[in-house]
Amino acid sequence: MLPEWISLECPATSERHRQSALARQAQLTKPLGALGRLEEIAVELAALQATDRPVAERAPIILFAGDHGIAARGVSAYPPEVTVQMLHNFAGGGAAISVLARTLGCPLEVVDAGTLGDQPIPGVIVDKPRRGTRDFGVETALTSEEVAFALACGQRAIARQAEPKPQLVILGEMGIGNTTSASAIAAALLGWPAAEIVGSGTGLDGERRARKARVIADALALHGLEVGTPVETVLAAVGGLEIVAMTGAIIAAARMGVPVLIDGFIVSVAALAAVKLNPSCRPWLLFSHRSAELGHRVVLDALGARPLIDLDLRLGEASGAATALPLLRLACALHNEMATFAEAAVSGRDS
Amino acid sequence: MLPEWISLECPATSERHRQSALARQAQLTKPLGALGRLEEIAVELAALQATDRPVAERAPIILFAGDHGIAARGVSAYPPEVTVQMLHNFAGGGAAISVLARTLGCPLEVVDAGTLGDQPIPGVIVDKPRRGTRDFGVETALTSEEVAFALACGQRAIARQAEPKPQLVILGEMGIGNTTSASAIAAALLGWPAAEIVGSGTGLDGERRARKARVIADALALHGLEVGTPVETVLAAVGGLEIVAMTGAIIAAARMGVPVLIDGFIVSVAALAAVKLNPSCRPWLLFSHRSAELGHRVVLDALGARPLIDLDLRLGEASGAATALPLLRLACALHNEMATFAEAAVSGRDS
Repeated sequence: MLPEWISLECPATSERHRQSALARQAQLTKPLGALGRLEEIAVELAALQATDRPVAERAPIILFAGDHGIAARGVSAYPPEVTVQMLHNFAGGGAAISVLARTLGCPLEVVDAGTLGDQPIPGVIVDKPRRGTRDFGVETALTSEEVAFALACGQRAIARQAEPKPQLVILGEMGIGNTTSASAIAAALLGWPAAEIVGSGTGLDGERRARKARVIADALALHGLEVGTPVETVLAAVGGLEIVAMTGAIIAAARMGVPVLIDGFIVSVAALAAVKLNPSCRPWLLFSHRSAELGHRVVLDALGARPLIDLDLRLGEASGAATALPLLRLACALHNEMATFAEAAVSGRDS
Repeated sequence: MLPEWISLECPATSERHRQSALARQAQLTKPLGALGRLEEIAVELAALQATDRPVAERAPIILFAGDHGIAARGVSAYPPEVTVQMLHNFAGGGAAISVLARTLGCPLEVVDAGTLGDQPIPGVIVDKPRRGTRDFGVETALTSEEVAFALACGQRAIARQAEPKPQLVILGEMGIGNTTSASAIAAALLGWPAAEIVGSGTGLDGERRARKARVIADALALHGLEVGTPVETVLAAVGGLEIVAMTGAIIAAARMGVPVLIDGFIVSVAALAAVKLNPSCRPWLLFSHRSAELGHRVVLDALGARPLIDLDLRLGEASGAATALPLLRLACALHNEMATFAEAAVSGRDS
């Protein structure tokens, strides 16, 4: 049983502000369209924020971490203890996302949504139904109660950021083994062969990548997952607690009228699940970057998404979304601060 | 006769610092290569700045403006008076690059390198040998003395930014008709058909674009330009004062050991001329963005350049380079501030 809020309609975006933003772009001292995607993103944010002056300054980053029973099957280049070690690194300021958040002036909240850790870590919020998922190579990863708990974990994280209302929110993840879980979810939801979704993750060679694809294909067969299987069944069978938490956070943010800047492959899979659970959240998603991870392309296509940057990133941790944030901020500054042809007394096109 | 400094050897980049930066990247708490192009750019800047801690904060933007006799032939969607009108807009803070410079905290210097303007504009440095170029549809655009003057104009602009030494410099341009001049230079230097280089500029339709390609093809024939024609002859025949000034500025910056972040099509053509005049400046060039302008791809390929972003920008004014600057800054912050595996006590890859 999914919680009721998951399927409640998300607010509509403001068509009036979109039209007004488009009209303003046509008046700014540049050939129309010459700022390309920067024009588009400013117009998009204006419609989402229902404002004439879109802003992307107050953008909290929420990082969800989880461990995966499937990691025992050699699907990652790193041992499972790295997840908890990285929690310390996030909180200590030494991880990539810690540096990015500090540089960008974004608050960073780290949520242990289901790691193996059993000791409190200063600066890390613990909100988990269990330590790690079960090994989906032999059993369902999560019970339906655990799925509901993780969805609510995401909702609680968004609620903690509600005052003052963020201009957008950035989600990220960390969890050894979670590209395997994400690939399995994507393969199941899209009916795509595992071998065409599985990438190198944190850096697998060809042989281990093939093993990873087999592990996923076997799991899909074991759990009887196929296109049309209910999303909550897929999430329970092969999901990860941090992935499900992000699905909940995405829907909760959209319900609150807060745009979500989507990171790479794993967050995109959480977004895919969110959109399948509640299609009305789709307009609230902005896509930041195209990951080097193979399956990202498939998931982006399924979502009709065209990310802003493509820098061969494959780290996760919201690092791609954070890297793209300055582009949103510049797009807003241009939209809000450029002079119009009339203001600057500049001639328009000849007729 | 070219000034002697144009062909003097530029300093070598620091291989020692490149190796040291590569070694550091391998120690940071992320899978090696997981930050993709952000790792590359940090390593590149470390080698260029000969430092263990690359920085991209102090990055002055120099904008060169010029007018073009060829604009009389209907090759632009905008009338020539827009160049001088935009000088006022740059200085007044309302142009795209004004907003970007302000938002990024970059000083912006605007140089009238050869517009038709004859009145001083507060905030604009005038450094021109004549008002506009001659119409290269019927005569050479510039004398060899005017080419030398414009090269020195670029050198003077870099010299004005020398203290304190910039961490990198951004060049940009404005000039109605200058995609026509830049396309002609590129076609001549690369022996490429004009029709495969000419794009829509500030927004031409198919018919006017075809006219623009014919104007260029005719000019190449009129002036006898072909692959192997000396660069200075090409610049004199079909050049623009702001384009030649940027060629001078690029070589002057490289000679001083200052990296140059290259903007779009027109700055890339200035860079192509610079590299042909003095190949030792090539390592000092960083490429920011892939413009929507058709010929940019051809010029980037000729330079072996792979820009960071591709956002359908086609404005010029250094707007693409300025938009990419935050990515360089984030790359430096990550390189300098991330913890190593040892510092963070995070396990490395399994063996």
